[in-house]
Amino acid sequence: MSFAAVDVIRAKRDGHVLSDAQIDWVVDAYTTGVVADEQMSALAMAILLRGMTPAEIARWTAAMIASGERLDLSAVTRPTADKHSTGGVGDKITLPLTPLVAACGAAVPQLSGRGLGHTGGTLDKLESIAGWQATITNDAFKRQLDEVGAVICAAGEGLAPADRKLYALRDVTGTVEAIPLIASSIMSKKIAEGTGALVLDVKVGSGAFMKDLATARELASTMVRLGQDSGVNTIALLTDMNTPLGRAVGNAMEVAESVEVLAGGGPADVVELTLALAREMLAAAGVDADPAKALASGAAMDTWRRMIQAQGGDPDAALPVARETEVLKATTDGVVTAVDAYGIGVAAWRLGAGRARKEDPVSFGAGVLLKVKPGDRVRAGDVLLELRTDESSRIEAARDLASAAVSVGASAPAPTPLVLDRIA
Amino acid sequence: MSFAAVDVIRAKRDGHVLSDAQIDWVVDAYTTGVVADEQMSALAMAILLRGMTPAEIARWTAAMIASGERLDLSAVTRPTADKHSTGGVGDKITLPLTPLVAACGAAVPQLSGRGLGHTGGTLDKLESIAGWQATITNDAFKRQLDEVGAVICAAGEGLAPADRKLYALRDVTGTVEAIPLIASSIMSKKIAEGTGALVLDVKVGSGAFMKDLATARELASTMVRLGQDSGVNTIALLTDMNTPLGRAVGNAMEVAESVEVLAGGGPADVVELTLALAREMLAAAGVDADPAKALASGAAMDTWRRMIQAQGGDPDAALPVARETEVLKATTDGVVTAVDAYGIGVAAWRLGAGRARKEDPVSFGAGVLLKVKPGDRVRAGDVLLELRTDESSRIEAARDLASAAVSVGASAPAPTPLVLDRIA
Repeated sequence: MSFAAVDVIRAKRDGHVLSDAQIDWVVDAYTTGVVADEQMSALAMAILLRGMTPAEIARWTAAMIASGERLDLSAVTRPTADKHSTGGVGDKITLPLTPLVAACGAAVPQLSGRGLGHTGGTLDKLESIAGWQATITNDAFKRQLDEVGAVICAAGEGLAPADRKLYALRDVTGTVEAIPLIASSIMSKKIAEGTGALVLDVKVGSGAFMKDLATARELASTMVRLGQDSGVNTIALLTDMNTPLGRAVGNAMEVAESVEVLAGGGPADVVELTLALAREMLAAAGVDADPAKALASGAAMDTWRRMIQAQGGDPDAALPVARETEVLKATTDGVVTAVDAYGIGVAAWRLGAGRARKEDPVSFGAGVLLKVKPGDRVRAGDVLLELRTDESSRIEAARDLASAAVSVGASAPAPTPLVLDRIA
Repeated sequence: MSFAAVDVIRAKRDGHVLSDAQIDWVVDAYTTGVVADEQMSALAMAILLRGMTPAEIARWTAAMIASGERLDLSAVTRPTADKHSTGGVGDKITLPLTPLVAACGAAVPQLSGRGLGHTGGTLDKLESIAGWQATITNDAFKRQLDEVGAVICAAGEGLAPADRKLYALRDVTGTVEAIPLIASSIMSKKIAEGTGALVLDVKVGSGAFMKDLATARELASTMVRLGQDSGVNTIALLTDMNTPLGRAVGNAMEVAESVEVLAGGGPADVVELTLALAREMLAAAGVDADPAKALASGAAMDTWRRMIQAQGGDPDAALPVARETEVLKATTDGVVTAVDAYGIGVAAWRLGAGRARKEDPVSFGAGVLLKVKPGDRVRAGDVLLELRTDESSRIEAARDLASAAVSVGASAPAPTPLVLDRIA
């Protein structure tokens, strides 16, 4: 069925529910160029301001999936489970989590992205490992999934091309924040990749895309419903992102911290969230195993090494180290009351860990190392943060941001839970 | 000052007031291509759904005027007064009104447009006169204004180019209906053309762009304020457009009806509205004259002839007549209770009088002739409408529409006033 783009835009603009046929048509027509960018951006703004019903979001997601190929993982012998995070600062959880869950008997088909702005991207982190390749064929993807149980790679061009085109448009037209479009963007790719179970890590707080719990809960519920309705066993955790995860914020530093976790050490919050997500993924996939044991036994580390090697990486290679380090020290005695995730994320970005435009390179060694976490006692002169960069000229732009991100007060802050809610 | 387009879009999306600097920048950057179509359409949708304050609309209008040239009519010896109609069915008022007001001593610089959709365009109507040219130079425009006192012509390319680009974008992105953008589009051109006084004919009803009185009143008030704030003495009349004006709907037929009015005859409603608008224009321009006398004396007809001749037209040439005529007859005895303007407008369009795309030609002879008006008694078999077209294949698409537009009932409808309100 064919429509006039203007009529579809007007319908949503005036608060009407789009029909299945209208949604199918407009997504397909946009992908093929019949609907122009300026028409889709007007529609995206109308969707942002008028909203969509759950049925509309489900149909939109289905139309995005139908714009490309859908992977068939039925030949994979293990149950499949994947995780998606909406993005945070120091969020390297995918790195230890993927081999850990695989070591427990599930297969993890993790199609990841690159970073933009103040949050890092999983592929950027792994590319700091010498030789590691983000791009593999669909056949190699399935083979590795079967043999190693763990794959982290770039999503192929054939998966939800409508989403790729629409996301680039939303990025420049102020329409990224539309919950129906965020949910359908994430879920179309996850459903098309063919996973059987999915755990969503929806971040809430200053360093996250969602700043408040209510909006995060709405997004999480929308995505859980989309997944369930498509036969993907989906649950969501809402987790705190007011403080960076762990101590390392920056690509190679985060790989090193992930390896520490796989070796049985690492920061308590990273270990806690990795285990919490692993338990959810295993339960959703119907695998009865204790991830804490797989971590302690070294099985997860073995899978990590095989996963990295399978994509050409050398797990023993030295990681890149930034040329310059500057330390920021406490100016008074007291207790660390906050380390603001957004401030640290932007500082790491300015130091070279992130990119402002898709085509920019990242510096693998750059970033911020937290020497303190909220609740730690400090004395004047103690080191709070290390700023690392390859270009000393970048320190100037990061110093004040990083410094302002750490608050030192008289008394310890009330402890806040890492996992705020669970939506199933 | 320079901005990121996304930040301007987000500000309006989130309901904030745009700063003067943001408005100046975004209008200029769009005109020069720095802001892309897909960004401006998202902004237009946000403006449509979030609105603008009077100060924002005024600044936006000023920025559109500043995108091009502003005519200086100070050398014209008479006071200037113009009229703008928001468009209706059978609305040929500009044709008799312009020479009438000029015959009373004012100068009328009427920059007009072409029709799109179910409402006709003044230039399309005048082009049915052999030899008449819509396009003239700025110098010829001013000379004719001084010598004849009346000019109806196409707006030059140099006038508010931002509006031309933005209007074309709004047309394909479902954002035509944004009141701040309608008001600034109309008023930027009228202010830039340099008129000293302006009377707005804001149409309300089925055949008009504005279907309800409240929205029409809001648009009228916004435009009156914009004009007054720019030193143009502006008033608005809200007038009924549930019934076509006069009996002729179609380019050449409307010219013929206009000439009847100038000759002292013509339908009562066309005469009434022409005189009402003429009185307002003369009062706004500070000219003390009675337009009824100028109509009765033939002075208005003399000015019409000189106005047409000044642009190469032959006022005595026979007007184009359509090849085919089909009559629609009453099937019962009764009283005509309604002749729906929208239905008649679309029927005339289908018969060839209007265009669906800017580049389409129009048929000068095509249209609908009303043989009855609301309140007329009819008997079964009496002719209600004449459908005229150059292509008999078009009759099929128009017959049912036209037929459904005429309602015949048992008792006469309550008379409705033509002028509904006056906003100054």
